[in-house]
Amino acid sequence: MKFGGTSMAGTERIRRVANIVRRQQAARDGKLQEVAVVVSAMAGETDRLVNFCREANALYDPAEYDVVVASGEQVTSGLLALTLQSLGCKARSWLGWQMPVRTVEAHAKARIDSIDTPAMVASMEAGEIAVVPGFQGISDNGRVTTLGRGGSDTSAVAVAAAVKADRCDIYTDVDGVYTTDPRIVAKARKLKAVTYEEMLELASVGAKVLQTRSVGLAMKEGVRVQVLSSFIDDDATPADELPGTLIVSEAEMNELVEKGEMERQLVTGIAHDKNEAKVILTRVPDKPGAVAHIFEPLAAASINVDMIIQNVGRDKGETDVTFTVPQADLARAQALLKDKRGDIGFNRIITDSRIAKISVVGVGMKSHAGVASTMFRALSDRGINIQAISTSEIKISVMIDEDETELAVRVLHTAYGLDAEDEAA
Amino acid sequence: MKFGGTSMAGTERIRRVANIVRRQQAARDGKLQEVAVVVSAMAGETDRLVNFCREANALYDPAEYDVVVASGEQVTSGLLALTLQSLGCKARSWLGWQMPVRTVEAHAKARIDSIDTPAMVASMEAGEIAVVPGFQGISDNGRVTTLGRGGSDTSAVAVAAAVKADRCDIYTDVDGVYTTDPRIVAKARKLKAVTYEEMLELASVGAKVLQTRSVGLAMKEGVRVQVLSSFIDDDATPADELPGTLIVSEAEMNELVEKGEMERQLVTGIAHDKNEAKVILTRVPDKPGAVAHIFEPLAAASINVDMIIQNVGRDKGETDVTFTVPQADLARAQALLKDKRGDIGFNRIITDSRIAKISVVGVGMKSHAGVASTMFRALSDRGINIQAISTSEIKISVMIDEDETELAVRVLHTAYGLDAEDEAA
Repeated sequence: MKFGGTSMAGTERIRRVANIVRRQQAARDGKLQEVAVVVSAMAGETDRLVNFCREANALYDPAEYDVVVASGEQVTSGLLALTLQSLGCKARSWLGWQMPVRTVEAHAKARIDSIDTPAMVASMEAGEIAVVPGFQGISDNGRVTTLGRGGSDTSAVAVAAAVKADRCDIYTDVDGVYTTDPRIVAKARKLKAVTYEEMLELASVGAKVLQTRSVGLAMKEGVRVQVLSSFIDDDATPADELPGTLIVSEAEMNELVEKGEMERQLVTGIAHDKNEAKVILTRVPDKPGAVAHIFEPLAAASINVDMIIQNVGRDKGETDVTFTVPQADLARAQALLKDKRGDIGFNRIITDSRIAKISVVGVGMKSHAGVASTMFRALSDRGINIQAISTSEIKISVMIDEDETELAVRVLHTAYGLDAEDEAA
Repeated sequence: MKFGGTSMAGTERIRRVANIVRRQQAARDGKLQEVAVVVSAMAGETDRLVNFCREANALYDPAEYDVVVASGEQVTSGLLALTLQSLGCKARSWLGWQMPVRTVEAHAKARIDSIDTPAMVASMEAGEIAVVPGFQGISDNGRVTTLGRGGSDTSAVAVAAAVKADRCDIYTDVDGVYTTDPRIVAKARKLKAVTYEEMLELASVGAKVLQTRSVGLAMKEGVRVQVLSSFIDDDATPADELPGTLIVSEAEMNELVEKGEMERQLVTGIAHDKNEAKVILTRVPDKPGAVAHIFEPLAAASINVDMIIQNVGRDKGETDVTFTVPQADLARAQALLKDKRGDIGFNRIITDSRIAKISVVGVGMKSHAGVASTMFRALSDRGINIQAISTSEIKISVMIDEDETELAVRVLHTAYGLDAEDEAA
C-alpha cells in the first residue's frame, strides 16, 4: 500500500491511513494479511525542505540536498508506525539505509537497483506491518539518495516487486483512472482496469495519476497496481473487492475480458496536454542531413521533441520544419537553435505556446482499423483544425489550437462511445 | 564546534554559523584547521516532532519516536554542509548511522558507547569540514536512537573525544559561564575558566549552560570544553584568543594560575535553585533503621533526595525528619511515603515548595578553611535564616526562604569578592 503526501498531511489524516491499513491487514477472515506500507512526506513538507536547501545554497550539492529532503518521509514513516501501534497493530519503520534500498546513478534523481528484504519479510511474517519511507535509498558508498519528485510511487512498486506482493495499492486523491479528465467531461467513466502500456501513454500526455517511471517499473516487474482514493471511507466495501483502477498486463486484461469482468474497448481513454509548444523553422535547405542538424543538438540537450512535420516551402529547394517541445524547454531550445543557425541554415524561428495535444489511447486499436479516421472526422465535423498528427501502436495524437482543447476532448469522448450512461436512462 | 537550536533556527542564522565555522577553519595562517561541527535541530523543531509523536500515540514506542525526532538534526546538518559549500568550504554531513555513533541502553535516552571515526577523520584531513547531527546514534540492531533532550552537547563532547580534538567549543545563547546569574547580580563576572567539578556542581544547582552529562563525559575523557556565544559577531577577536569560558581539569587550571592567566579564587561561583521542595515527616520513631524506611523507597523510585536534617522531636523517642526533593517529584514522593506509612511510622507529612537552595562552589575551598563561616556570617548579618546545610568537597549549600533568593545571592557574591570592578573605578 502506498499513501501520498495529501493522505499523510497531519496526524489526523495519518490516523485515517492507519485505519485503512488495519482493515487491509484484517482483510481475510481469521488470517492476518502481510502488509507493507510506503509513505510520502506530509504535503508541503518536501517543498519546505527544498526551499531551505535553495536558501542555503542556490547551486546545492545534491548529496546534501538528499540528506535534507529525505527527512520528510522518515518523519511520516515513524508517525504511521506509532499510529498503527495505537490501533493495536504491530508495526515498525524500515528506513532506506536499514533494509537497505540500494540505488544507482545521480543524487536527487537516483534509480532503485535492489532492495534487501529478508529482515523486513521476516518481520512481516511475524505479523508486523512494515512501514517504508518512500523516495529514499542509499548509494554504493552509503550516502542518502532520493529518487526525484514523485519517487514514492516508484518506491512502492519496487517494494512490491521485492516482496513479491499480490498487489500494489496506490492511494491518491483521485479514486482511479478515468476515460478522460472528469473536470472536462462530466460523463467520464472510471476504468476498472487499464494495461501498463495504456497507462504509460495516458501519463505521458498529461493524465498524471502515477509517476511514469513507477508504471514502467511495474510493467517490467509484472507488479499488479491498483490506483484508489484514501479519502473515500467506504467501510461497506468488502476488502477483497477492488474499488479503484487495476493496472495490469495485456494478458491479464484479456483474461478479465474473457471472464466478462471487463468490456473490450477500442479506445480506453482520451488525454490532453497543454504543456507543449510549437516551433517552426522557415526556409530550411531541403537536402539530406538538414533535419539531423536540427534535432541532434536538441537531443544532446535532453530536450524531448515530439511531433515533427516538414512542409514544402515557398521556394524550391527549401522547406519549413515544424515540431513540438515541452514549454518548459522552449527558451533553451530557441537559444540552442539560434546558436546552430550556421549549421542548419534556416531563415526565421516562429514559436507558439497556444497549442494542445489531444490523444486517444487504447490497446484495442492494435487490431482495429478505423480508429484514426473516426478521430479526424469527429474533429473536422466540429470545425477543429488538425495542425499535426503523430501515432504509436496504441495512441493517436493530434495538435490543435489550445482554445479548442475541451471541445475536442468532449467530441472524441462521445465519438468513441466512452460517455457514461445517464443514471435516468 | 557545537551549535544549539537557537543558533540553527533558519537559513539566515545557519549562514551566521557557517561564517563562524569558516573563520575557525582558517584560524592559523596558511594551514587550514581540521574542524568537525555538531548541530542541534532548529529551535522549536524537536518540540514540533515530539508533539506529532504524542498525537500519533500517547504511549509512544520510543524506537519509532527516535525515528521521528532524529530527523530535525538530519535537516540542519545537511543545511549547514550546503551553506559551508556556498562559502567555498568543502563540507559533508555524517549521520549517526553513517559513522556510526553506537549507543547503548534505552531508546529516547540512549548513551553513546563508541564512535567510529576513521572515515570522518580521513575526510577532515582532506580539508572537508565534518558536519554531525547531534542527539542521534544507532543501536546494536541498527535502529535509530536519540540521547534525550539536550543530548547534542554530549554528542559534541563524544565526537571531540573520538577525534582527539584540541578543544570542543560549545556555542550557545550566553557568552560563557558567570560567577552567578547576571540577571540577579549586575556585577557578575564572566569566568575565564572553571574546572569540570565546579561546572558539574554549578550545573546541578541550576546554572544550566551545558547538559550535565556532557560535562561528566568531558571530565572522564579529558576533553577541553569552551562555552561561548554564537551571537557576538566579533570579527576583531583573533581566532586563537578564547572569548568564552574554558572548562578544564584541575591540573590545567593550576597551570593557568601559575602562568598568571587566572587568579586563584576561593569561590568560583554562586548558584541558586528554586526547583526543590521541602518535606517534613513529624514524630518518626527514633530508632535504628527508621531513616532507611524513608529513603530506600524514594531511591528505588529514582527520586533524588538532597539535604537531610534530623531534628529532635517534642516527645522522647521520636524525631522530625526534613529533606528536599525536586518539586517535579514532590507529588510522587508524598504518595509513596503515605503508602509506606506503616513501615516508617510518622505522624504527619508537611511540604513546602517555597524554599531555595543557594550554593557556593569552588575548588579553592578544598584547601582553605573559613569558606563556610564566611557564608553563614554574611547571610545572618542580613537576617537570612538558614533552614538546612549540605556540603561536598567543593560546594556548600544552604536552604533558605525562596523570597530571599536574590538577596542571598547578591550578599554572597559581594562577601566572596566576586563583584566586577566598576568601569569608572
